[in-house]
Amino acid sequence: MTYAAATQDQLLAIRVNAGIGDLAQSARFASAEPDMVEAIVEGIGQFAAGEWAPLNRLGDLEGSKLANGVVRLPEGFAEAYQAYVEQGWNAIAGPVDFGGQGLPFTLACNVLENLGTANMAFNLLPMLSVGAIEALEHHGAPELQQKYLPKLVSGEWSGTMNLTEPQAGSDLGALRSTAVPIAEGEHAGKYRITGTKIFITWGEHELSRNIIHLVLARLPDAPEGSRGISLFIVPKYHVNTDGSLGSRNDLRCVSIEHKLGINASPTCVMSYGDNGECIGELVGVPNRGLAAMFTMMNNARINVGNQGVQIGERATQQALTYARDRIQSARAGSPGRAPVAIIEHPDVRRMLLRMKALTEGARALLYYTAGQVDRGTLGDTGAAARAEVLTPLIKAWGTDVGIEVASLGVQIHGGMGFIEETGAAQHWRDSRIAPIYEGTNGIQAADLVTRKLGLEDGQALLGLIADILRDGGDEPSLAALAQDCTAVADWLRSDASLDDRLAGSVPFCTMLAVAVAGWQMLRQLRAVEAEDNPANAAAKRASVRFFLDRIVPEATGLRASAIAGAADLYALDTAQLAG
Amino acid sequence: MTYAAATQDQLLAIRVNAGIGDLAQSARFASAEPDMVEAIVEGIGQFAAGEWAPLNRLGDLEGSKLANGVVRLPEGFAEAYQAYVEQGWNAIAGPVDFGGQGLPFTLACNVLENLGTANMAFNLLPMLSVGAIEALEHHGAPELQQKYLPKLVSGEWSGTMNLTEPQAGSDLGALRSTAVPIAEGEHAGKYRITGTKIFITWGEHELSRNIIHLVLARLPDAPEGSRGISLFIVPKYHVNTDGSLGSRNDLRCVSIEHKLGINASPTCVMSYGDNGECIGELVGVPNRGLAAMFTMMNNARINVGNQGVQIGERATQQALTYARDRIQSARAGSPGRAPVAIIEHPDVRRMLLRMKALTEGARALLYYTAGQVDRGTLGDTGAAARAEVLTPLIKAWGTDVGIEVASLGVQIHGGMGFIEETGAAQHWRDSRIAPIYEGTNGIQAADLVTRKLGLEDGQALLGLIADILRDGGDEPSLAALAQDCTAVADWLRSDASLDDRLAGSVPFCTMLAVAVAGWQMLRQLRAVEAEDNPANAAAKRASVRFFLDRIVPEATGLRASAIAGAADLYALDTAQLAG
Repeated sequence: MTYAAATQDQLLAIRVNAGIGDLAQSARFASAEPDMVEAIVEGIGQFAAGEWAPLNRLGDLEGSKLANGVVRLPEGFAEAYQAYVEQGWNAIAGPVDFGGQGLPFTLACNVLENLGTANMAFNLLPMLSVGAIEALEHHGAPELQQKYLPKLVSGEWSGTMNLTEPQAGSDLGALRSTAVPIAEGEHAGKYRITGTKIFITWGEHELSRNIIHLVLARLPDAPEGSRGISLFIVPKYHVNTDGSLGSRNDLRCVSIEHKLGINASPTCVMSYGDNGECIGELVGVPNRGLAAMFTMMNNARINVGNQGVQIGERATQQALTYARDRIQSARAGSPGRAPVAIIEHPDVRRMLLRMKALTEGARALLYYTAGQVDRGTLGDTGAAARAEVLTPLIKAWGTDVGIEVASLGVQIHGGMGFIEETGAAQHWRDSRIAPIYEGTNGIQAADLVTRKLGLEDGQALLGLIADILRDGGDEPSLAALAQDCTAVADWLRSDASLDDRLAGSVPFCTMLAVAVAGWQMLRQLRAVEAEDNPANAAAKRASVRFFLDRIVPEATGLRASAIAGAADLYALDTAQLAG
Repeated sequence: MTYAAATQDQLLAIRVNAGIGDLAQSARFASAEPDMVEAIVEGIGQFAAGEWAPLNRLGDLEGSKLANGVVRLPEGFAEAYQAYVEQGWNAIAGPVDFGGQGLPFTLACNVLENLGTANMAFNLLPMLSVGAIEALEHHGAPELQQKYLPKLVSGEWSGTMNLTEPQAGSDLGALRSTAVPIAEGEHAGKYRITGTKIFITWGEHELSRNIIHLVLARLPDAPEGSRGISLFIVPKYHVNTDGSLGSRNDLRCVSIEHKLGINASPTCVMSYGDNGECIGELVGVPNRGLAAMFTMMNNARINVGNQGVQIGERATQQALTYARDRIQSARAGSPGRAPVAIIEHPDVRRMLLRMKALTEGARALLYYTAGQVDRGTLGDTGAAARAEVLTPLIKAWGTDVGIEVASLGVQIHGGMGFIEETGAAQHWRDSRIAPIYEGTNGIQAADLVTRKLGLEDGQALLGLIADILRDGGDEPSLAALAQDCTAVADWLRSDASLDDRLAGSVPFCTMLAVAVAGWQMLRQLRAVEAEDNPANAAAKRASVRFFLDRIVPEATGLRASAIAGAADLYALDTAQLAG
């Protein structure tokens, strides 16, 4: 089942919510002028729909397979990746000094949105490479940058992030992989890496000519916990001084996981240094690897939130097509008994509009967040702080939206939705990973009510709510929700214990995300209504009204949960609760 | 991953919500005295956990397979079904005249709950047979009953329901299968059946010695639409007059579906009369087949709602075990840095209590509904009407709960939740069918706001809300939600058009279900608090307080959606909406 890129709504969000016009006023992003933006959004949309979308079902059906240490992808993936690299899409936001176009993060988001809507599992390959690029760009020594960045930016090589170990998931401080300095010989000044990493996305494959692994490990005598972790770059193939590929490094994929979804993406167990000869180079400062990792994790979290938009868009388009074509039952109350397309039935229409409203709302929040990141890059510290507040919202709520919309998509297909051939079920299965990886949604919410709540002495978060009230307060439902958010935030900042805050974190995160998304939807509607295009305005009005009149009021129902506190959660001790 | 039956909570619900004590006062259900009830609940719990649960993962992994017209189940299923039949579990609620024990529907629910918690896919085999038994019991001629019921009641033979055709899903009036009377010869008085049926659960297998298909088809010159459908009984093997099995009937399974979940359950495409020799017998009155089908569909809908309880229980137990054993991260704010079991973290605890509260709430609603059905059987027409109101609630909300709880179960497992070997993902996949089959949840909600809303001139539904207010009105959250339900019901009954009612049907259905479940939870808590068992009372209080203080208030957020009306859903025409 193919799809058409949501170019028009993306351009609207890039213009209104990200404010690309303002960004292009800066010297740094001057090239992001309207023609260029339109060319990129249309170009990547067509490329992704044409080249990557047709592989989505095949990737799910055949998946990636490991045999004799080699991971194979279904036919067509290698060529589709090659085409992506050759057309220069990987370099959109990469650093100019290393062959990138240096365009705003907003446009990098759009490239990922289009690739991921076409093929969520495949899109993880460029998405993870971004992390490696950012780590090197911000923390790598110049010679490391020179050695690795040009080919990572072009996409000729890909990158991975190696964090998790069996005993170290959310708690990276528990990791045990080691890095021992090499004093002399060919590799003097480098490190010998040993350890096992799990859940390594696209950890092994043959689509790119080299794979650059970023690996968290401990130096000898490093402090325990999270302050004793360093970051290393560990290539699959050594890189010679002339840039050519040398011998194979001592690392391998020992198995790949059998997963619920994103089956085309090989999720690898990686073993480093089985023969004591895995060589890595230090990135940044010893024992500060986790901090380095976290600087880029913010954008990675936004990119995962983006996946909620992606799966929402894909599921919505598929459901709309099915509902338009599937004839079943006469319209209730109609004098005729002729069956109609199910899109005519009120509850099916409700589900479809809900899918559309949630997806567009998440997209509005996504590009609003991306625009704030770009403003932060330009030196606007207020925007940077706001981006930090928004990041857990788009990651957590965006990915929740992905699941809900994909589930509605299954429901609209009726019995056919439960049959794998239909494809609706794949979207739902694929969507389920996004609330888990890159920091579970619970961890996002914890981040919101601890670090983000206190940013700028609370003004970063409170200022956001105040803006919603100021600009969107004439919408009664939005005003009510924003006031609820203020009340909860006040309670969180004053009377609540840390446990209370964590107990209410997830409902509060949802409330705030819905409020911001509703506000950004409203801004879209005003922009479209100011134009002379009644059809566009009507289409946008339908989803915005649905969002403001039905989805926003639902979120007010979460207020009681947000301030219910932790005491009742601990009324039973662990033995009573778990038996 | 095995589990232990939730015997204690089941007995509480059977006692408090179903009111088994009152039922046992009647002559008809006199045998349902406390010792018997306890023996059944404990016995089926142990049997299911011991014999059926160990096959759950295997059934998912290997699934059912069709080869040369024969459906094979994984090793162990045949023996486990045999043991179930031999121990007499299938006959619990079957008619006494045909070998059944004639016990209340409440206890049949309990048998299904335990079997389905152990193995949801496998449980569909007895669950579908119940439909065949009820159809014959209520609509079959005495000689048909004599011929088929004893072995269906014992479980030696199994039954299926053949409704759906490719063009006739929710709209059964569109079905095209035919039945032509046979005037003379061996089969005089019977019918020649021709047609293709899809989505036939357990349509073919070798676990029972015969399969009794109930098939909807049209007689020659039958009126169009739903008033021209008749019900036929079509055995896989003809049954000789002495009760022995005769030759194979002309019907076969031509394919089985590749599904998202419940993989052990063969979902068959059945072809009847390929050689013009498929023989069936009429059940009930010509052209009244749909009515006959609907009389038993009510209980079938309750049984599907029961599946939400089942998957919720299984997922909750698995998550509790994992959360108790998985050590990760120190407790936030604690002076020590020692990692703790994740069950100690506030948000994980919130998720676990939510799973527990939703599952117990759905169970309370299930047994309350079952008890009303049983009262109706005893002649209490008010209870019968209330059961009709409750049926769409337990079906729709119960199955939504199943998905939500299974999804939380995946989330609590973190990355491991997305790995199929863990087993949490299977529960989530399995859960997704229940909101679709036996009437989609949208159809349940439509039933609520049309037929059920008008029952007894509205008093059936309004009386239920009044009871909640009268008995549970001292709980502020419950009072608020019940008042919202009253307001919505008043609007639905007065100002709302049919489209408006349907547009608000799903949110209203959820609101009302949560209100009834909250009330029934409260009744459980009062009962337990009146006993001298502080540990039991504390355990129940934890889930009831979570339900009343957090889940009930959320449902009030749906009020705006319930009364938002249909106009906005039709602001765009179909072409604008679907492109």
